[in-house]
Amino acid sequence: MEGTPQQPKNCSSLLEELVAEARKASPGGQVADYIPALAQVDADCVGIAVVELDGTVHTAGDANVPFSIQSISKIFGLALAMDRMDDTLWERVRMEPSGQAFNSIVQLEWEHGIPRNPFINAGAIVVADVLTSRYSSSKTAFVQYVRQLCSNEAIHADHDVWNSEKEHGNRNAALAYLMKSFGNIDSSVPEVLDHYFFQCSIAMSCVDLARSLGFLANKGIQPGTQQRVCDARSAHRINALLSTSGMYDQSGEFAFTVGLPAKSGVGGGIIAVVPDYGVICAWSPPLNRFGNPARAVEMITQFALRLGLSVYH
Amino acid sequence: MEGTPQQPKNCSSLLEELVAEARKASPGGQVADYIPALAQVDADCVGIAVVELDGTVHTAGDANVPFSIQSISKIFGLALAMDRMDDTLWERVRMEPSGQAFNSIVQLEWEHGIPRNPFINAGAIVVADVLTSRYSSSKTAFVQYVRQLCSNEAIHADHDVWNSEKEHGNRNAALAYLMKSFGNIDSSVPEVLDHYFFQCSIAMSCVDLARSLGFLANKGIQPGTQQRVCDARSAHRINALLSTSGMYDQSGEFAFTVGLPAKSGVGGGIIAVVPDYGVICAWSPPLNRFGNPARAVEMITQFALRLGLSVYH
Amino acid sequence: MEGTPQQPKNCSSLLEELVAEARKASPGGQVADYIPALAQVDADCVGIAVVELDGTVHTAGDANVPFSIQSISKIFGLALAMDRMDDTLWERVRMEPSGQAFNSIVQLEWEHGIPRNPFINAGAIVVADVLTSRYSSSKTAFVQYVRQLCSNEAIHADHDVWNSEKEHGNRNAALAYLMKSFGNIDSSVPEVLDHYFFQCSIAMSCVDLARSLGFLANKGIQPGTQQRVCDARSAHRINALLSTSGMYDQSGEFAFTVGLPAKSGVGGGIIAVVPDYGVICAWSPPLNRFGNPARAVEMITQFALRLGLSVYH
Amino acid sequence: MEGTPQQPKNCSSLLEELVAEARKASPGGQVADYIPALAQVDADCVGIAVVELDGTVHTAGDANVPFSIQSISKIFGLALAMDRMDDTLWERVRMEPSGQAFNSIVQLEWEHGIPRNPFINAGAIVVADVLTSRYSSSKTAFVQYVRQLCSNEAIHADHDVWNSEKEHGNRNAALAYLMKSFGNIDSSVPEVLDHYFFQCSIAMSCVDLARSLGFLANKGIQPGTQQRVCDARSAHRINALLSTSGMYDQSGEFAFTVGLPAKSGVGGGIIAVVPDYGVICAWSPPLNRFGNPARAVEMITQFALRLGLSVYH
Repeated sequence: MEGTPQQPKNCSSLLEELVAEARKASPGGQVADYIPALAQVDADCVGIAVVELDGTVHTAGDANVPFSIQSISKIFGLALAMDRMDDTLWERVRMEPSGQAFNSIVQLEWEHGIPRNPFINAGAIVVADVLTSRYSSSKTAFVQYVRQLCSNEAIHADHDVWNSEKEHGNRNAALAYLMKSFGNIDSSVPEVLDHYFFQCSIAMSCVDLARSLGFLANKGIQPGTQQRVCDARSAHRINALLSTSGMYDQSGEFAFTVGLPAKSGVGGGIIAVVPDYGVICAWSPPLNRFGNPARAVEMITQFALRLGLSVYH
Repeated sequence: MEGTPQQPKNCSSLLEELVAEARKASPGGQVADYIPALAQVDADCVGIAVVELDGTVHTAGDANVPFSIQSISKIFGLALAMDRMDDTLWERVRMEPSGQAFNSIVQLEWEHGIPRNPFINAGAIVVADVLTSRYSSSKTAFVQYVRQLCSNEAIHADHDVWNSEKEHGNRNAALAYLMKSFGNIDSSVPEVLDHYFFQCSIAMSCVDLARSLGFLANKGIQPGTQQRVCDARSAHRINALLSTSGMYDQSGEFAFTVGLPAKSGVGGGIIAVVPDYGVICAWSPPLNRFGNPARAVEMITQFALRLGLSVYH
Repeated sequence: MEGTPQQPKNCSSLLEELVAEARKASPGGQVADYIPALAQVDADCVGIAVVELDGTVHTAGDANVPFSIQSISKIFGLALAMDRMDDTLWERVRMEPSGQAFNSIVQLEWEHGIPRNPFINAGAIVVADVLTSRYSSSKTAFVQYVRQLCSNEAIHADHDVWNSEKEHGNRNAALAYLMKSFGNIDSSVPEVLDHYFFQCSIAMSCVDLARSLGFLANKGIQPGTQQRVCDARSAHRINALLSTSGMYDQSGEFAFTVGLPAKSGVGGGIIAVVPDYGVICAWSPPLNRFGNPARAVEMITQFALRLGLSVYH
Repeated sequence: MEGTPQQPKNCSSLLEELVAEARKASPGGQVADYIPALAQVDADCVGIAVVELDGTVHTAGDANVPFSIQSISKIFGLALAMDRMDDTLWERVRMEPSGQAFNSIVQLEWEHGIPRNPFINAGAIVVADVLTSRYSSSKTAFVQYVRQLCSNEAIHADHDVWNSEKEHGNRNAALAYLMKSFGNIDSSVPEVLDHYFFQCSIAMSCVDLARSLGFLANKGIQPGTQQRVCDARSAHRINALLSTSGMYDQSGEFAFTVGLPAKSGVGGGIIAVVPDYGVICAWSPPLNRFGNPARAVEMITQFALRLGLSVYH
């Protein structure tokens, strides 16, 4: 850590300040509108939560309002699949950054159906295939895993979003069928996509998300319950993947500017892991041209800069 | 840092151990042979050096034998260009990982002559153009900069390698002319390539390299001389770029496995930055299929694992 | 025509000669084996038929044995869709050669879901979508159209092949879903693929095929029945498309060497149109590395060279 | 031929009509302006010439004004290289259409430096390399060849255009160096580019061009002089290549609509070969979005449609 994080008291007031600044700032883009259920979200929502390793929770704004976690669910999926499968997982999905956004499908073609990493859609679909193939009811297993991680039994998928995603998921279907043609999908494609869209449609608040991912900042042990979620090596690996590939085609810029493992979703959420300190989650629906939530990214950036948090010093 | 680095005494014996293991290990690939001057290098050379922030130097094997630094020179070039130019540099070269190795030229075409980052060849050629355009004698300025960083006035370019590179540099010429056709090269292409091949052909030892890059582990201040080489933000940025893009198409795997900012060169060298601790440089000429020196990568990996060094914890 | 075609008597004996040569020649490749139903075909079958504009039929070898027409069906599909739809068809599929075989999916991505021409799979799937959207029962309409063209009511789809294709059609499903994500598929993808695989699985003999396509050599009028199948401009257009794009990534070479509009299928058939003269169909299952039937291509080539048939003189 | 070509008298009045229509039509684009020497051309020039096999010449408009032949020179280069080299030429350049315009450099990368055909820039540069390697003075040989073909000793390169091309030829330099890195260029790149830009900068009139290419419509024999320029097979091959690849990424559309072997240049010229009849050359500088001269293409299209000329009937 570049400096000692400031006191909790300062932390809360800093969060209030960041939310106030965000509310004044330009939205920086449009709310995701590829499905009606997402387009209806209030563009003015702004929330942030920090959960420290000792369990202290700081919040500001709409930090307790659930939203569609979308691609942030890829972290849960990966952690669960790493738990269920040995290192042969990495023969089916690589651990390299993906370069241009445009070429997800070009890259799959070139690299024979092996996605570059588990945080691009193709990679998350392979992970979803691992889960559907290894659980009799992968959707139930998934939601229970998430509920346990954030100690909130009320977590559930939003069925409107889930159904909408399935209706508008032609591009993901193309990726899945292309990988199946290369032999990299075991279950049936509709079943895999059903799981994938289910996990994307889970709704959680900033507090839920920050609490659920504490184990990544704590070498695999969940701070609240002291339960081991994964071994220290797996936590390290997930953080490394988040650092190189968690922010779409803005991952390099985020490392360059902020320097924290992070993952965003088109629902407007973003989480960032601060090893040995805690997890931050910010939320603001409008997305910038890279598909990242502009004001939420800015809140995380300011929080990290002002507290001197960065893994690259 | 995951744990407190062990004592210096242990460090030296660990380095001896790593060199002994490397000498017994399979070379893991072939020595670069695209130019005769590189192909003549003794494949059995193995060296490692660690320079800590307090100036302590640990070495083992051929740690004082100069070798062709090749792409490691891209760090010096970038640091010098960042010193000479403001943030408009980042309009000419991006900060994103590059994805597939194959598509350096595809990406340049798609992204209108703007390279993905300064550690792929196209990006380093843009940096070389910045230097040739801003110095009356960029080659002299470059070598003096490096000499000062490692406090070794004997550092120089190997003219055999330099000439050889120029004769075999058709692919780099293609990249440079393509970027010039998009307006992203100001100087004449032959002049830019002359500088680029010059800096690649500089010869340095493991000790020279580890000492020269100490400022990256020390927020921009060179440990030996206490001179400020760059501001803390620039050091952070270079470390972030090294973390996402320093190891060719193995950058993600290196982050995943080791978790340190690092850069390799086809001369067989690799440096890794450990923030707040120091810099490691290992050398072993044979290259794996990604163009990284297999045994040198393994030495760094083992050093980091045994001492618990990783920025991702 | 470069020279006056020789007498019918000579034509028949030439065909016998070509079949004898083909039987002696190396198969030049393997029988398509991506589905069991095709892999079972006798690799030694060799047949050829020529149907002239006056109705004269010349045959040799297995010219009356039905085989899976596969991609030759794309001609029937296109002719039927051009009949049912105005020139807005060409906003949904282009008329340009496709370049590299590998990049069917790359090209679709780059060109926003608009396939290059109706003879690559993606283009034929768009044509199948036109048919499924415009007929209450497109499969019935299709087979009746073909039966009428070759005056053979016995023509039918091979249900083993049809079902097999559907099970192994993941790559075509990927193309279809990608195009649907760009809005270029109206019907449901499973319905479109069902039609597409149905038409591929129709079985016809060399005589059937040569007879059915006579209208392309006769400005749109079917020689046998004197019925107008399409206008002269449409026949011209189909011949032009066959000339630039009918032979996969060997289309240029076939124009260069032979110079006739032609279409091959992975069932081992190939048809070639000789304007103002007639249609040739040859069959031999083993495929070369471009997916074209090696010995059948050679028979057509020799026939054209010996009779001096070429549109390019 | 679809119909008997009309009488010469009618032909001349048809040409006058076409020129009058062209003068009234929208220019359909901009004059090439990537070099000043081309940008200065009068956008209003319109000319057309038809040279029949018996030597009859029909003209209208600016048919005797010389203009920069640019890519039309690729036909002369290819014919000369085919004369100097056996079929191993086709191991260095293929005969397949090239697909997307954008990917000239992508394709070269993917296909290891072997261009798709001799009418894209990369292919013409390989041809230029053949000529520079086989002639002590390839530029002199080239211009003499062209002078002889059109029986006009005054033909020469425009040195302003030639020098301008060299200054703005970075993209062609990129192609050439990339091919050299794959071993597909023998001579030095600057020498090859010098030849290439020289041949592009030759100035000829519509009458010169139509007369010079008569051998392509006459099985290799130059109509005026009865000299054999090449064998019938070579004339066939060039016509086939022109048919599939002569009109950039509009080649398929031109085959579809017109159906004649043709080649355009960014100087605004286009030639079309009518086997057994003659050669047409039209000129109008403004270029459409494919880089083809819009009004010149339209004049050729109308000429072919009204006389019923097409190789695909």
